[in-house]
Amino acid sequence: MARYDIAVIGTGPAGISAAITAKIRNKNVLLIGGSMSPKVAKAHRIDNYTGLPAISGEDLARQLKAHLDEVGVEMTVKQVGTVYSMGDYFALQCGEEMLEATSVIVATGVVQTKALDGEDKFLGRGVSYCATCDARLYKGKPVAVLGYSADSADEALFLSEIVDSVLYFPMNGEVPEERENIRVVREKPLGIVGDKSVTALKTDSGEYETACVFVLRDAVMPDKLIPGVETDGAHIKVDINMKTNIGGLFACGDIAGKPYQYIKAAGQGNIAALSAIGYLNDIKKKEV
Amino acid sequence: MARYDIAVIGTGPAGISAAITAKIRNKNVLLIGGSMSPKVAKAHRIDNYTGLPAISGEDLARQLKAHLDEVGVEMTVKQVGTVYSMGDYFALQCGEEMLEATSVIVATGVVQTKALDGEDKFLGRGVSYCATCDARLYKGKPVAVLGYSADSADEALFLSEIVDSVLYFPMNGEVPEERENIRVVREKPLGIVGDKSVTALKTDSGEYETACVFVLRDAVMPDKLIPGVETDGAHIKVDINMKTNIGGLFACGDIAGKPYQYIKAAGQGNIAALSAIGYLNDIKKKEV
Repeated sequence: MARYDIAVIGTGPAGISAAITAKIRNKNVLLIGGSMSPKVAKAHRIDNYTGLPAISGEDLARQLKAHLDEVGVEMTVKQVGTVYSMGDYFALQCGEEMLEATSVIVATGVVQTKALDGEDKFLGRGVSYCATCDARLYKGKPVAVLGYSADSADEALFLSEIVDSVLYFPMNGEVPEERENIRVVREKPLGIVGDKSVTALKTDSGEYETACVFVLRDAVMPDKLIPGVETDGAHIKVDINMKTNIGGLFACGDIAGKPYQYIKAAGQGNIAALSAIGYLNDIKKKEV
Repeated sequence: MARYDIAVIGTGPAGISAAITAKIRNKNVLLIGGSMSPKVAKAHRIDNYTGLPAISGEDLARQLKAHLDEVGVEMTVKQVGTVYSMGDYFALQCGEEMLEATSVIVATGVVQTKALDGEDKFLGRGVSYCATCDARLYKGKPVAVLGYSADSADEALFLSEIVDSVLYFPMNGEVPEERENIRVVREKPLGIVGDKSVTALKTDSGEYETACVFVLRDAVMPDKLIPGVETDGAHIKVDINMKTNIGGLFACGDIAGKPYQYIKAAGQGNIAALSAIGYLNDIKKKEV
């Protein structure tokens, strides 16, 4: 298996910035994300992305994409389930696939919501964070989607082509295009129930049978994503060089703490990339 | 005297970014610098200012200036000699003028050269870091200019209109336009000599009589600029929120440590501004 020098997880300004700096320093970079930062694209207007006055989120997303194209970095559309530290490299589990990288930069953004009752318990047994990864496991079955992230509505459309039916909970207010087998439910989810695996989703007004609850947030909790990483609430603990407690693992952007600002994220992405390059250089010296 | 909420010292990407964020948060901001970041403007091409692919330094400087204009921040052309912490505010000495601000963001860039022999000893008695501030003290007298910074050649032209004559040492390779009373000397300065005040500049090939040595660097050593600030070599020690050891004083960009990168500087400027705003809010709460 090809082992990347640096895997960057997340395609917001932090991840994109990290990937750009890593690439122009001739590193073998894997940039993994769901899609081109839908959160950025939906921002109405950004006043303090230094150098791009009063830019719309759509235009900023376009600029970021143009920059990736300019330096020749492609986005790999995958969802990383877990990052395992293997000592001298990292294994990234993406559905049934395993990828390898010598260093990892986490730029996934921050989870703003608490885990649902039953979410942790049934993760992998009827709770999924990734429609792309797990849709075919529920072929012909009924599923529920909790749409927190900006691309949840699109994910629901994709799911509806594979599963029997989709109950869609518009957590961020947006609903998918109408489809025969998508039903929008405007109720508050309270918990996920089941036995060996998920059987139903409880809401404030009832209970819905389902084989899987797709919880589609912009990010997952960092200690779920990376076992062993030191956290501070929803954030990964980093030093000023974006180093975490795990050698070779760096974090930047919202996941590395407040303020939640695009230009701060871009700046930290740059630092994380240069710290990762320093780490790679140190490893090479040790090997000699 | 009007007291500013936030004084930002330095007009590179860090200072400009800090000023923009402070301004859009409705703070009363003073942005102090020599001129529009000549260092940025002279960069040939910048590949990793995220969102502005393959931009020339000139274009980046133009974008930064446009952003300042858009949010309505003006640059104040002054040289800050010393920043004094006065407890609940800061006094900024600019030549003979004193300015006041409740909080200060230091974004002066980093000194890349060591102090010259005699430089510390004669500072203020024939050693100056600021042509604009001190030119008239040497009206009709001979002066020397050590041109390290990008705008040194222009400063020498300005000086030549006031002083008797200028010995110009092109430390960065660039020379001023020809003038009758400017003489370019391509020798290595070794030390500044004098008694009560400066009398001469020693080089590797001789000694030159002079009333003042203008040492024009892009930045001054942080512990000279801010008595009592905790440093680490040429850098001011900051935490991840850009806080220094002095309450209300923040640092960002190159002066806050490596990497020396424009997008990192812009990101840290944003953090510093938001930390300064947090500090101002805390003070207000205490006053209530």
